[in-house]
Amino acid sequence: MPGTPRTKEKTMRLPKHIGVIPDGNRRWAQSKGMTKDKGYAVGVEPGLALFRLCKEVGIKEITYYGFTMDNTKRPTVQRKAFTAACIQAVEVMTQEDVALLVLGNSESRMFPKELLPFTTRRTCGKGGTKVNILMNYGWEWDLNHLKLADPAHKSIMKHLRSAAVSRVDLIIRWGGRRRLSGFLPVQSVYADFFVLDECWPDFQPEHLFRALQWYHEQDVTLGG
Amino acid sequence: MPGTPRTKEKTMRLPKHIGVIPDGNRRWAQSKGMTKDKGYAVGVEPGLALFRLCKEVGIKEITYYGFTMDNTKRPTVQRKAFTAACIQAVEVMTQEDVALLVLGNSESRMFPKELLPFTTRRTCGKGGTKVNILMNYGWEWDLNHLKLADPAHKSIMKHLRSAAVSRVDLIIRWGGRRRLSGFLPVQSVYADFFVLDECWPDFQPEHLFRALQWYHEQDVTLGG
Repeated sequence: MPGTPRTKEKTMRLPKHIGVIPDGNRRWAQSKGMTKDKGYAVGVEPGLALFRLCKEVGIKEITYYGFTMDNTKRPTVQRKAFTAACIQAVEVMTQEDVALLVLGNSESRMFPKELLPFTTRRTCGKGGTKVNILMNYGWEWDLNHLKLADPAHKSIMKHLRSAAVSRVDLIIRWGGRRRLSGFLPVQSVYADFFVLDECWPDFQPEHLFRALQWYHEQDVTLGG
Repeated sequence: MPGTPRTKEKTMRLPKHIGVIPDGNRRWAQSKGMTKDKGYAVGVEPGLALFRLCKEVGIKEITYYGFTMDNTKRPTVQRKAFTAACIQAVEVMTQEDVALLVLGNSESRMFPKELLPFTTRRTCGKGGTKVNILMNYGWEWDLNHLKLADPAHKSIMKHLRSAAVSRVDLIIRWGGRRRLSGFLPVQSVYADFFVLDECWPDFQPEHLFRALQWYHEQDVTLGG
């Protein structure tokens, strides 16, 4: 009918950029009678599965919350375990068609040397989907860079250490906690926040679909 | 029994600082067959009720998300209505025992002139509980102040325009949206985020108690 608005429902409104907080690894390990450090290696496979699903659906950018500068203060056995898992996640990702970036304080010894080549974005395979993995990231480290910017420039985003990471539309957190825990505070200002009670190692494709369905039902106002 | 750890459950773990996002005013008005602008004035009374309850329970600081620089781009009739409601909220609050601060871009004409005296914290009555009301606030306006700071100083908090507002422990949002919408990005990095589906004008004391009960059940790690 002329003049009838086209129904928006016909296509699914997708987030361009998804932030992933893969929490609950330690609680998962303990629930299986294992020590906490055993919860990280099992998180690599879900990370790849999630990436492939996102790619298939048409998500343009994904940022994984690997580990933070705060996290590195945990017991050494845990620190080594999550660092190893994150390195493995990067290795696995280099086998995909992806534009890969590892972001974090790389001047510290907590940053794995072997990943230094990824601190500028690298094209793997045919490239395409942007994947950012935060490693030894800290929100203060990120925001402190603003102090070096010319106050005449009003933009914030461009002057962050995380400037290569765009605004996040949807954050999905596993493990039941309803908090950002320092995840990209600027890129997350308008993000919709979906929390799953399941721990990250128990990732199921259905989790992503549930989050996307929920996101689709939200209005997006960007603060307006 | 000697050596037995004291159970934490005996006392309720309370947030020191609660952030309040009183959303859903316009949807509430529409659901009552009123125009959107009619949803703001009815939000003043709940704000006072919430304050009194918080004070009673022992909360030390409350920050209300009044309106943002983005919000002022809405239709004039709405802008006037939420500005008037926020002014009234401040007037009402001055009758309480409170240390009151109105925070936002006061150099703009969108900032109500009559509230300029509150842009530095004022003691009302016997003082005590800190109450911050964000008016014509903008996260970029807030963070841009970091560009004036000496890069040698590593702290972020001290160099924000919102430096007088402390870290937020619990954010309660009415109106069902699960997002921060630019609310104090730095103070909120570790905040636990509780969302109520009820619109703000339908505030009930039970909402606060539900949020506090939930907060009590969370662990607090501050990113560790």
